[in-house]
Amino acid sequence: MNYTKIIDISWPISPEMTAYKDKNIVFFNRTKTFDHDHVREALVTIGTHSGTHIDAPAHFLATGATIDQQPLAPLVGLCRVLDLTHCIEKITTQDLVLHDIKPGERILCKTRNSDVEPTACFNPAFVFIDKTASEYLASCKILAVGIDYLGVERGQPNHETHIVLLGAGIAVIEGLRLAAVQPGAYDLICLPLLMNGLDGAPARAILLQR
Amino acid sequence: MNYTKIIDISWPISPEMTAYKDKNIVFFNRTKTFDHDHVREALVTIGTHSGTHIDAPAHFLATGATIDQQPLAPLVGLCRVLDLTHCIEKITTQDLVLHDIKPGERILCKTRNSDVEPTACFNPAFVFIDKTASEYLASCKILAVGIDYLGVERGQPNHETHIVLLGAGIAVIEGLRLAAVQPGAYDLICLPLLMNGLDGAPARAILLQR
Repeated sequence: MNYTKIIDISWPISPEMTAYKDKNIVFFNRTKTFDHDHVREALVTIGTHSGTHIDAPAHFLATGATIDQQPLAPLVGLCRVLDLTHCIEKITTQDLVLHDIKPGERILCKTRNSDVEPTACFNPAFVFIDKTASEYLASCKILAVGIDYLGVERGQPNHETHIVLLGAGIAVIEGLRLAAVQPGAYDLICLPLLMNGLDGAPARAILLQR
Repeated sequence: MNYTKIIDISWPISPEMTAYKDKNIVFFNRTKTFDHDHVREALVTIGTHSGTHIDAPAHFLATGATIDQQPLAPLVGLCRVLDLTHCIEKITTQDLVLHDIKPGERILCKTRNSDVEPTACFNPAFVFIDKTASEYLASCKILAVGIDYLGVERGQPNHETHIVLLGAGIAVIEGLRLAAVQPGAYDLICLPLLMNGLDGAPARAILLQR
């Protein structure tokens, strides 16, 4: 595997990390400490949608696959980071058509969402992918789409963006951190924990610079 | 990134998964269900050393680095899976010298540990890396070592194997599943969750076949 640099695009996990609608559900319990036990161990409580994570189809589809059934090939390979920092409210089809997206691409959307600290309060006005843009991405037959906030959508009552993307078999990566990443081509590796039967899982995501 | 196949070498995570000394600490709490909420979500409790995971130096070293400080380069790149299935009790220096291990290698030890089901009872007689072998690996200046059970050692009162490996700056990968893997060369990708300040973290690990 050839690369010159690993760029970590994962959201640091802690009890203080930004949580969807500020509902903090991450806890660390240090069950063994060095002073007491000469070893350190901890128990972690975390949501399937905390920080950087993959949404399995089962998140929003009645008979959707669970995260242990998620193929990994869409999450491992050439990707493109798009500069969408001009989008104020949402990403629409218009914002994407300029980028000449091809079948089989992995697309990461860099927006102004990435500008915040990883422990900032939840931003209810985060930039999201609207229904039209999700339909466009599905028509492009991409393999995966990632966004730099804790959801790919907000304020769409029937969760159309999720349902269109997951229904089209597109891997959905949420909670990326792209502030330090220049738009362009990289190798993406995004590996969710292998959790049996669940609707999603926390992941570590990196870009390899060639 | 060129590969012909992704081989998942991760331990499936579930409340029923094998736990060290059978102390089950993994729990799934399905907080939203499709029937009730039209969305699925879950809360997961997991140990920093459950299933496939990385031991940070802080696990056993007083002033060791925590998992968020773990460099990823030792966990991403060319590796070699060694056939050590002949070892009955433990892996010793003698078992390793035959393999002509070079500086900068990533070494995964395939043993008979991999033969068990991922939900089997804990095997207190698992094959481990003894102190002499850990010193040999440190002298070889390898980048990472992995084993196919929940610990790299057992029954050594001062945890010498952990302390030698972590003290030498070698990344320690535990809980791999190698039954389906032919010994030989692959690209390894093992990504632990980015957990601030903890002594280890669950990881997803894959091999890329060229």
